[in-house]
Amino acid sequence: MDVPQLIEHLRQGDVRALARAVSLVENDAPSARQILSGCFPLTGNALRIGITGPPGAGKSTLVDGLARRYRAQQETVGVVAVDPTSPYSGGAILGDRIRMRDHDSDPGFYMRSMATRGSLGGLARASADVAVVIEASGKQRLLLETVGVGQDEIDIVRLADVTILVLMPGMGDDIQSIKAGVMEIADIFVVNKSDREGADRAEKEVRSMQSLAAEHGSWVPPVVKTIATTGAGIEELEQAVDRFRAWLAEDGRLLTRREAHWRTRIMEMVRHELLRALRGHGLSDQDLQTISRQVVRRQQDPYQFVPQLVEQLLRQGDNDG
Amino acid sequence: MDVPQLIEHLRQGDVRALARAVSLVENDAPSARQILSGCFPLTGNALRIGITGPPGAGKSTLVDGLARRYRAQQETVGVVAVDPTSPYSGGAILGDRIRMRDHDSDPGFYMRSMATRGSLGGLARASADVAVVIEASGKQRLLLETVGVGQDEIDIVRLADVTILVLMPGMGDDIQSIKAGVMEIADIFVVNKSDREGADRAEKEVRSMQSLAAEHGSWVPPVVKTIATTGAGIEELEQAVDRFRAWLAEDGRLLTRREAHWRTRIMEMVRHELLRALRGHGLSDQDLQTISRQVVRRQQDPYQFVPQLVEQLLRQGDNDG
Repeated sequence: MDVPQLIEHLRQGDVRALARAVSLVENDAPSARQILSGCFPLTGNALRIGITGPPGAGKSTLVDGLARRYRAQQETVGVVAVDPTSPYSGGAILGDRIRMRDHDSDPGFYMRSMATRGSLGGLARASADVAVVIEASGKQRLLLETVGVGQDEIDIVRLADVTILVLMPGMGDDIQSIKAGVMEIADIFVVNKSDREGADRAEKEVRSMQSLAAEHGSWVPPVVKTIATTGAGIEELEQAVDRFRAWLAEDGRLLTRREAHWRTRIMEMVRHELLRALRGHGLSDQDLQTISRQVVRRQQDPYQFVPQLVEQLLRQGDNDG
Repeated sequence: MDVPQLIEHLRQGDVRALARAVSLVENDAPSARQILSGCFPLTGNALRIGITGPPGAGKSTLVDGLARRYRAQQETVGVVAVDPTSPYSGGAILGDRIRMRDHDSDPGFYMRSMATRGSLGGLARASADVAVVIEASGKQRLLLETVGVGQDEIDIVRLADVTILVLMPGMGDDIQSIKAGVMEIADIFVVNKSDREGADRAEKEVRSMQSLAAEHGSWVPPVVKTIATTGAGIEELEQAVDRFRAWLAEDGRLLTRREAHWRTRIMEMVRHELLRALRGHGLSDQDLQTISRQVVRRQQDPYQFVPQLVEQLLRQGDNDG
């Protein structure tokens, strides 16, 4: 099957074609660019919902609950779940597959788990690209789930139209440590496991820190209490998402947000592409090995070498062209 | 003061010169490259100790304890503390400054706190470069402290010769969620706050997961129990570091590890440099704004545009040269 056929198939709801396209894109296969280019015009209409928070907050169950609600309303759903799992262990992926088994026969639902790749920034790129392919298959709601509260996760949820930060009671000082880095990106706060002791206190703490999330102008991020395992509060969460969506639709806010997303993404893509060019005809693995050896032995100064190398690469286009 | 003078001053122990050079490098000032190039030959002899772990595990107190021990032995100490603090709030930095006030009059001690910068990978670069400058000032022990257990933190501690992963009792499932991503990089495990309930269980859990940290060959990462607030276990931790250091010194292991570090760093530096070139004469902020607008409106396909732009940039060197 060539790329145009693959895209035609995934567009018509062929799950195998979708899964194959996602894999090719995730692995940055030679055909990835063409696939993405073919999928891109089919995107832009789905609502992208980012869900992040510390490990153990219950994001997976929450995502599952939201997905079920949307499906009950005949809205198609795609899920991209990013796990900080090393390439050595596939535990989290396996867990997600089991978790989502219920949806297996549902053609209006598609889920992809992704593990942490080696290279810096690689996962943000891969998850953004995978989201494009899944959206192109016609999914109306795209749930982007990441575990963790670091820069990586921020970069991943940044591609969402609405970002939900999931916290839980009993985090204590941890809420404090999270607040500065991630609070600003939250459009909606969730205190999950709210049947546990300390739920009110957690809610109060979040509310007291809402000032940090104030870059939203007229939108005050609500705090929704949920018990994902029983489904309690999921409806309220869905309504909060709808309200935020309505707010986003006003005054061109959605477009502004998506433009900001693409500014970041384009720079990332450029970086990725430049590096690919470099590996192609500037710096082989063998070269890199040799230079690293010399650097460790202080026979080579990387702060002089790298700028020279880049200059050389930029001049080289002439000889190739 | 010009750059050679600045380096001469910081080399002779002038704290102001050191602080200034660190700031210039952290902010990627125009003189940064020259400063780094001047500092680079002065580095390579310090032992770099990376300390990471989830928020609240007590890393700061542990770093402080280690620093005090080294100072008591007349070994000079530099600390780079990386906090996942947003640019909007300087809380963590302030906290660190207060925390380290005791050392203020000690010329054999220097500490720098760094907050999360906006761009992906920026912090890993900045902390690596800052470490070079601090080491050039003659510090014999370099402590690199990061909060968190994500890819960012892994990239930061990767520049260490020895990596300490700090955990604490009562993390429960959180230990499980951390294990896959970070366990592999730990040379030494610390269970801090070991006077708390569950310390033995935490130790047992870590031991049961040591197989994940098995890529070390003949080195089995020890588990050290500490109570950083009272200083209990710090001596044992120091001894564990010494033992690992001795192990590293055999069979060229230290050089191998540092070579691997530089392979990653050089690629990062190249990426950074290419991007700088691009911003210089390929893609202005204004261009980026315009393109993002077109992309959001599906008037421009980024998957076609970016490769074209990069190709154009690579050809452009000819006209400039």
